[in-house]
Amino acid sequence: MKKYCFGVDVGGTTVKMGLFDVEGTVLDKWEIPTRTEESGKNILPDIAESIQKKLCEKSIFTEEVAGVGVGIPGPVDKDGNALVAVNLGWGKKAVSKELTELLHIPVMAGNDANVAALGEMWCGGGKGYNSIVAVTLGTGIGGGIIIDGKILNGFTGAGGEIGHIHLDDEETEACGCKGHGCMEQYGSATGVVRLANRKLASSDKPSVLRDQEITAKSVFDAVKAKDELAMEIAEEFGFYLGKGLAIVASVVNPELFVIGGGVSKAGNVILEYIEPYYKKYVFPGSLDTKFTLAALGNDAGIYGAAKLVLG
Amino acid sequence: MKKYCFGVDVGGTTVKMGLFDVEGTVLDKWEIPTRTEESGKNILPDIAESIQKKLCEKSIFTEEVAGVGVGIPGPVDKDGNALVAVNLGWGKKAVSKELTELLHIPVMAGNDANVAALGEMWCGGGKGYNSIVAVTLGTGIGGGIIIDGKILNGFTGAGGEIGHIHLDDEETEACGCKGHGCMEQYGSATGVVRLANRKLASSDKPSVLRDQEITAKSVFDAVKAKDELAMEIAEEFGFYLGKGLAIVASVVNPELFVIGGGVSKAGNVILEYIEPYYKKYVFPGSLDTKFTLAALGNDAGIYGAAKLVLG
Repeated sequence: MKKYCFGVDVGGTTVKMGLFDVEGTVLDKWEIPTRTEESGKNILPDIAESIQKKLCEKSIFTEEVAGVGVGIPGPVDKDGNALVAVNLGWGKKAVSKELTELLHIPVMAGNDANVAALGEMWCGGGKGYNSIVAVTLGTGIGGGIIIDGKILNGFTGAGGEIGHIHLDDEETEACGCKGHGCMEQYGSATGVVRLANRKLASSDKPSVLRDQEITAKSVFDAVKAKDELAMEIAEEFGFYLGKGLAIVASVVNPELFVIGGGVSKAGNVILEYIEPYYKKYVFPGSLDTKFTLAALGNDAGIYGAAKLVLG
Repeated sequence: MKKYCFGVDVGGTTVKMGLFDVEGTVLDKWEIPTRTEESGKNILPDIAESIQKKLCEKSIFTEEVAGVGVGIPGPVDKDGNALVAVNLGWGKKAVSKELTELLHIPVMAGNDANVAALGEMWCGGGKGYNSIVAVTLGTGIGGGIIIDGKILNGFTGAGGEIGHIHLDDEETEACGCKGHGCMEQYGSATGVVRLANRKLASSDKPSVLRDQEITAKSVFDAVKAKDELAMEIAEEFGFYLGKGLAIVASVVNPELFVIGGGVSKAGNVILEYIEPYYKKYVFPGSLDTKFTLAALGNDAGIYGAAKLVLG
C-alpha cells in the first residue's frame, strides 16, 4: 500500500524537500544545496541520494512510496522534461525519466509556480477549492492556474504567466520580459517600490516614507498607520492588480484567487485595495470569485510537488 | 457498438441538429424551430421528438448511439444544467437529465461558444490541435477555451468570456456588460462599425466608406482596395484584438487561436492586422502560438456538441 510521497522544490540555491503521508501531513522537511556547476549535472543524483538516505533513516520501503514530485524553476512539458532552467544551469533535461531511473519510484515534474499553486489548493489558502489562480507577488509576479484540480500548464509551459499581462500603454520603463506596462511592473514587491518612488517624486505631501528605505513592507506599514501618500500608492497598486486579475478571471473564471509572495505578508490590507478594482473591471459572471491569502509560504512548492504524484 | 452521435445547437430562433458517425462525418443536418413560449418548456421535448423521428427514418437503434450533445446559449454547469438562458426563456434547467429521461440516450450539455470551439478543434480550423482558443467576432465577441482537449468551463460557466477583457481606461461608451473598454467594443462586427464611425467623424480624409453603409464587411472590402482610412480603422481593430489575445495567451498559453464569426469572413486580411500587435504585446513564451480562421461556420456548434459526448 502507498503510504508516503516526496515533494521536491528545486531552487537556484537550495533544494527544499519534504516527506508527506498521502493525506498531506508533512512528516519531515529538509534542504540540500543546489550544485549548479557543470550544467547542474549533480542536481538530480543529489536529490536521489537524499531521498534514499531518508528512506533508510525512516525504514520506509520503496513499495510504500506513491512517488516523487519535483517543482522546477522553468517551463516543463507534459512528459516531465524541463525545457530550460537558467538558474539550475539546465537546458532541456528529462527530469522525470532520469530521476525515475535513479530511484525506481514514479517521478512527476512541473513548473515551480504551478506546483506551488497546487500546494496552496491541497493544504493552504485554497484548501477545499478545485479551481484557483495562485498569484505570487514577489520580485516579479508568478501565477499558477488550477482548473478542476489540474494544473493549466499551457502549450509551451507558459500557462499562468499572468505577471506579463499588458496593462498600461503609457508605461515608459521596460519590464524584465522587455515589454512595457506588464502587471508585475505595478503589483510585485519591485513594482510597489517603483510606484512609491514615482509618487514621492511627483507629490510634495509629507509622508513617513520620506525618511526611510522604501520597500513593499514599509509602504504597507505606512498604509496601516493611515499615511495619506502611502494610501495613494496602495490605491494605484490595487488599481493595476484588481484590473489585471479581473482580466484573468474573464478568461478562466476561477472560484478563488490565492495571493501569496512577499507583498502578501502585509496581510488583508492588500486585498482591501485589490478587490474594489477587481469588482469594477470584471465580467459579471466572475463577480463572486473570492480572494484569500496564501497560507503555506515557502513550503507551497514541496506540498504541491507531493500532490503532483497523488493526482 | 456505438456508431453514431447527435449534435444539437439550440439558438433563440432555430435548433440546429446533426447526425454524425463517431469519426466526425456529418450524415445528416436539419433544423427545427425553437419554441420559446411558455418559458421554453417545449424545446427539449421537440428536440427529443426530432431525434426519435430521425432514428426511425435512418433505421438506427438506440443502442448504436453514443449520445446526444447539446450547446446552450448561456452558462452550463458540469452536470449539464443550464443556469440561465434568456434567449430560450429558461431559468435553471436540468438539460442533461430531462433529455436523457426523454430519449434513454446519454446526454451532455455545454455553453454554445465553448461547444463551438470544441467543434472547430475536432473537425475545423483547429483540427490536429489539442489546446486552442476559439474567438468568435460576431455582434459581440465570444470565446471558447479548450485545454488538453477539454473545455475550460469555469467555476460559474463564465470561462472564455474574453470579449469582456478590459482594454481601454479612456472609453466613454458602455459595453453590453455595462463595463467600459471591453475587447468586444473594438473587435466585434459592431465594434468595427463603431471604430469606423469614429474615424470618419474625426478625419477629413477621402474614403469610399463615406458613400456607403458602414459594416465590418464594407470596411474590410475597402481595406482590400487599399483605402487609406479603412486601413487606419483596421489598424485600430488589430491593435485592440492583438493586445487582447496577447493577454489571453499570457494566461492560458494555447497552441492556436481560431478566429471565426462574421468579421472573419473578410479572410486572412484580419490576421495581418491582428498578429503584429499580438507579437508586440505577448509574453515571449507564447510568441509561437499560431492563428487560423475558423472553418465550420455556423455548423461548429453541432460538430462540437457531437464531440462532447464522444469525450
